[in-house]
Amino acid sequence: MKRLAILGSTGSIGVSTLDVVEAFPDAFEVVALAAGSNLDLLEEQIRRMRPETVSVRDPEAAAELRRRTDGRCRVLHGDDGPLAVSTHDGVDLVVSALVGALGLVPTYEALGLGRDVALANKEALVVAGEHMTRQAADNNARILPVDSEHNALHQCLRGERTEEIRNLWLTASGGPFRRFTKEQFEGVTREQALDHPTWKMGPKITIDSATLMNKGLEVIEARWLFGIEAERIRVVVHPTSVVHSMVEFVDGSFKAQLGITDMRHPIQYALSYPDRWATQLPAFDPMAVGPLEFDRPDVERFPCLGLAFRALEAGGAATAVMNAANEVAVEAFLGGRVRFVEIPRVISAALERHASESASSLEELLRADRRARATAAEIIERGVGS
Amino acid sequence: MKRLAILGSTGSIGVSTLDVVEAFPDAFEVVALAAGSNLDLLEEQIRRMRPETVSVRDPEAAAELRRRTDGRCRVLHGDDGPLAVSTHDGVDLVVSALVGALGLVPTYEALGLGRDVALANKEALVVAGEHMTRQAADNNARILPVDSEHNALHQCLRGERTEEIRNLWLTASGGPFRRFTKEQFEGVTREQALDHPTWKMGPKITIDSATLMNKGLEVIEARWLFGIEAERIRVVVHPTSVVHSMVEFVDGSFKAQLGITDMRHPIQYALSYPDRWATQLPAFDPMAVGPLEFDRPDVERFPCLGLAFRALEAGGAATAVMNAANEVAVEAFLGGRVRFVEIPRVISAALERHASESASSLEELLRADRRARATAAEIIERGVGS
Repeated sequence: MKRLAILGSTGSIGVSTLDVVEAFPDAFEVVALAAGSNLDLLEEQIRRMRPETVSVRDPEAAAELRRRTDGRCRVLHGDDGPLAVSTHDGVDLVVSALVGALGLVPTYEALGLGRDVALANKEALVVAGEHMTRQAADNNARILPVDSEHNALHQCLRGERTEEIRNLWLTASGGPFRRFTKEQFEGVTREQALDHPTWKMGPKITIDSATLMNKGLEVIEARWLFGIEAERIRVVVHPTSVVHSMVEFVDGSFKAQLGITDMRHPIQYALSYPDRWATQLPAFDPMAVGPLEFDRPDVERFPCLGLAFRALEAGGAATAVMNAANEVAVEAFLGGRVRFVEIPRVISAALERHASESASSLEELLRADRRARATAAEIIERGVGS
Repeated sequence: MKRLAILGSTGSIGVSTLDVVEAFPDAFEVVALAAGSNLDLLEEQIRRMRPETVSVRDPEAAAELRRRTDGRCRVLHGDDGPLAVSTHDGVDLVVSALVGALGLVPTYEALGLGRDVALANKEALVVAGEHMTRQAADNNARILPVDSEHNALHQCLRGERTEEIRNLWLTASGGPFRRFTKEQFEGVTREQALDHPTWKMGPKITIDSATLMNKGLEVIEARWLFGIEAERIRVVVHPTSVVHSMVEFVDGSFKAQLGITDMRHPIQYALSYPDRWATQLPAFDPMAVGPLEFDRPDVERFPCLGLAFRALEAGGAATAVMNAANEVAVEAFLGGRVRFVEIPRVISAALERHASESASSLEELLRADRRARATAAEIIERGVGS
């Protein structure tokens, strides 16, 4: 029996994780949950999973939850809540699915305790990939990617050697605006951007999919997860998302992982690893899907993808700065305060301002993150321009 | 340095194998070659590779070759020639690429010496799969599949467990007659059948691709290579042959191997295994190929595929009988003595006649093979009928 802590239990990944847990009732015990402010769902999860500890964002929510759960579990709140959850006694595997930089410290500390982490919080690797992977290596902890693309690469790399990789090929659905002209991008609405063609996910990652920043973040994530330089990470547009990603080896052979676009698949893989467990989910049928197509991504129409490669090349805190500015810009877009096409402009301006931030420690990276957030907010406040 | 023996050096696989060997001159020494009657090519190979021993089919060819090579290597002939080549002193790896049942004994005896075998002679597994795989297991020898489909499965299964396989998916190009109606099949000529849309191969295997018997043989081969029952082996038509085959795991995940349709790829994989070596062959570009499509095969139009599943289910010597009758029928088709649609009829009639042949030893299987050949010849002689 694996003892789980779940960071972000009421989010899209958290809910799917608990689905997987309930499909294998004898395999898991859920020890601790960290959520935001969706108290109704968290209360229901507490009833079903009987965790020892939960955490929520603010003290009011914590008080309300204590009232509702009547002492059945310990209720924490604030930034230290997720940390207490991920470092909770007796946990074997931490599912790290908080959205944004918030997941960074609890993930890092869990790895420091030698705990395996099923990682959906891609920002942990984007902001502090080098520190995170070193922490895992130093403490014999595994980072098991939950992102379907990295999960696919992880599967393709079973029984293979890193030095025999020629290129990693990340597939991108291309998002809802794959065929949009530059002119059409000018008028993109919040509703259009939230309507992803193949994956059902949370709002932040859905917007990132529409800008292709999600793919940019994944390039950075792949660089650290698999120890492969950016110039050997390719992005390929694959509209139906059937092929989740591919590895090209030095001998010219490609391996691809494919299947249904249901996050419960990669989550189960990460939870059951190194084993594979028989699933009751609908089977994938290669004969029932349409033709599989692969196209070159257009960095001109999707400047966020180019920004990610640029930040990775710059090194230091650049990817942290890029990520922070992106979070702020996406939130502003969702709040109607910037236009879709302004998102990359906010990021680009923030990157220019914080070109040479240092990255020698997690603390420095978090400071760079905070400064970039302030800068991005200020840029948005003043007006991004066109 | 690996010391190689090559059975079938002047055939399509043999020639490609020597291409790979010459691309890695420091990695291999070619110790012995077995060929048929293409003396000009064999003479050239002897000049380039300097083997210690070669064998040819008949004594006249051997005498002629001795004259031409002037004692530079030992020249053998007859059925024992390939056996002497595969069991030659100091060989590490045997490339088994003779066409037909001829490769069986030399392959079996090489495995008996604990030698790894890069296996292209699929009949070895079709006729005597159980004996062959047991021989390999008992002597710690590896069977490394050269067939692109099984090679793909082998790659997809690195780092995986047999008991976690749900299904093996063999891709089939569908051959040149994929869209033919039953009526069109009646008039198929030798030239049409030899014009394979995606792979350049020898004549026997090209005809087998056109009847889908090749896929049937591969189903049987996969059953023994990977220890998976026939009902868990699926055949899927994939016209461009970009995906070389797929594995479906119990957790719903699919892994596929893909690449260029050039036999030097799977050959190099088998020769370099467990390593992968950087190749100079043109790189595969997923963005440069057309859409990938997967269709259900039609057993009614391609009865050979159904015959293979039927023979596998019957067990015993049935697959040996099927294979022998197919060899005879294909040869008769190439010689203009039976029509294309009569090939499965010959096989079916032979299978009925030898339904319950015993298969307790290699000798019995070879006897069943010989009897089935005689039966098939007799059926053809009398006229297959319609």
